[in-house]
Amino acid sequence: MNAPDFQAWAAAGQERIEAFLQRVLPQPDIAPQRLHVAMRYAALGAGKRVRPLLAYAAGELSRADVERVTVAGAAVELIHAYSLVHDDLPCMDDDVLRRGKPTCHVEFDEATALLVGDALQSFAFQLLGDYRLADDATAQLEMVKLLAVAAGSRGMAGGQAIDLAAVGKTLSVPELEFMHIHKTGALIRAAAVLGARCGSGLSEAEFARVDSFAKSVGLAFQVVDDVLDADAPTATLGKTAGKDAEQGKPTYVSAMGIAQARALAAQLREEALAAIAPFGARGARLAQLADFIVLRQF
Amino acid sequence: MNAPDFQAWAAAGQERIEAFLQRVLPQPDIAPQRLHVAMRYAALGAGKRVRPLLAYAAGELSRADVERVTVAGAAVELIHAYSLVHDDLPCMDDDVLRRGKPTCHVEFDEATALLVGDALQSFAFQLLGDYRLADDATAQLEMVKLLAVAAGSRGMAGGQAIDLAAVGKTLSVPELEFMHIHKTGALIRAAAVLGARCGSGLSEAEFARVDSFAKSVGLAFQVVDDVLDADAPTATLGKTAGKDAEQGKPTYVSAMGIAQARALAAQLREEALAAIAPFGARGARLAQLADFIVLRQF
Repeated sequence: MNAPDFQAWAAAGQERIEAFLQRVLPQPDIAPQRLHVAMRYAALGAGKRVRPLLAYAAGELSRADVERVTVAGAAVELIHAYSLVHDDLPCMDDDVLRRGKPTCHVEFDEATALLVGDALQSFAFQLLGDYRLADDATAQLEMVKLLAVAAGSRGMAGGQAIDLAAVGKTLSVPELEFMHIHKTGALIRAAAVLGARCGSGLSEAEFARVDSFAKSVGLAFQVVDDVLDADAPTATLGKTAGKDAEQGKPTYVSAMGIAQARALAAQLREEALAAIAPFGARGARLAQLADFIVLRQF
Repeated sequence: MNAPDFQAWAAAGQERIEAFLQRVLPQPDIAPQRLHVAMRYAALGAGKRVRPLLAYAAGELSRADVERVTVAGAAVELIHAYSLVHDDLPCMDDDVLRRGKPTCHVEFDEATALLVGDALQSFAFQLLGDYRLADDATAQLEMVKLLAVAAGSRGMAGGQAIDLAAVGKTLSVPELEFMHIHKTGALIRAAAVLGARCGSGLSEAEFARVDSFAKSVGLAFQVVDDVLDADAPTATLGKTAGKDAEQGKPTYVSAMGIAQARALAAQLREEALAAIAPFGARGARLAQLADFIVLRQF
């Protein structure tokens, strides 16, 4: 398993998710048309699909059916897509550029963007109710709960609230960690665990290892994001660079400096790899993903 | 079964839902505290709880366990509560008063109100994943799907989008009906059907009758809402009166005049009662609810 192999694997996963979302999202000619056009604008055609890729890699480990993992990964990606649309709104980060395109409320309007986010969230849960993801329906209800908790006030939405409250404040590194474990970490963990739960080839201890891996990767992801925001030009990012500093948001870079933030990302990568070391070669895909996430643009 | 009996029954249902939501919504001392305080502000202590009452009445008909119906009714009510919070935002209806209190974004702030709505929606699905609502877990996954569809772009959120597009336009009565079947009708139907689906004492034809009843009641509810908005003082409504006309929103009153709108509400009530007539005395509770909804404030 080498780098070109990983790239082909990742591209195949990204294409599978894209094709699935293309097919299942309401078509643009179905009423209300403007809302459906805007939902597709927000969810299709861009994004690295990091969360679905985590679901695929974890699903391979648990010998899950790839069709099932596609549904689970798509549901997580829809939650992610909705959060970006709402996060970009004027009352939140007020951003105009996302994935190299005008943000949803700029391309459409604020009210439509609000409804796009709302409807994408509903659609994520619709997928989890509509498709068979686990042999045992009771286990699948657990998956519904897991995604809802990861998205909600004790997960992603809660992390956004902590983020809001932190604007203009100096946070310690542990406080930053608390924020990010919620804001981005919860959904990244959900992606890996839901992917794994689509199969039954793992023990509970092994599911916990996947979760622990994803927790470290999720935090590393955020640290890298802060470094990139401070470091990379807007054209490379596909979103407005330097926004965090401009908006007075505490980041790992502001808390510990850019060199130390890079070192922390490397350390979190090591912790992630240690969590899956017992899987041996079977964990190679997850290890490659950790590198894909942590080493991007560095 | 007479009117005082109905009032006691409704009050008991309202108290049961309130107590359940009080207990299961994240407590205000749990981080992120401001978000949890705001979620409780938006979901507790007010509202007629029409949707949960429909769930209870339909659940009695299907011999459902009342604890299960409470969970289903609470989930629907949380979707309703989230929609009100988002609907009141400046980019939507820009309203400052709801249920006699400042709207969520006025009491807190816009960003918090956005997250409150997002997190209340997640919480609704968390409840459906967390509690046992049907003996058959596969049937419960169908309930997850049903609520998601009712809330999403082909249901409530879609109805809001149609509503947005209609501002300043003249709609025909059929166009108005299309809008309201989505905007409020979908969730009212979901409430009745989910309540009924918590039990197994009905045939599929009987479930369809409950759905048909709820469809007529949902539409009647909206016609009555338009009449009240045109007719009643703000203090009675607990929300700003006359907003629809002021914002150029097409209503049944603007489409057909107040007398004809009242007549339409009466006709829809008749259709609702006809749908449940085959249940005989067993449908009395649903019939009382139809009257409660249609005859309020008249």
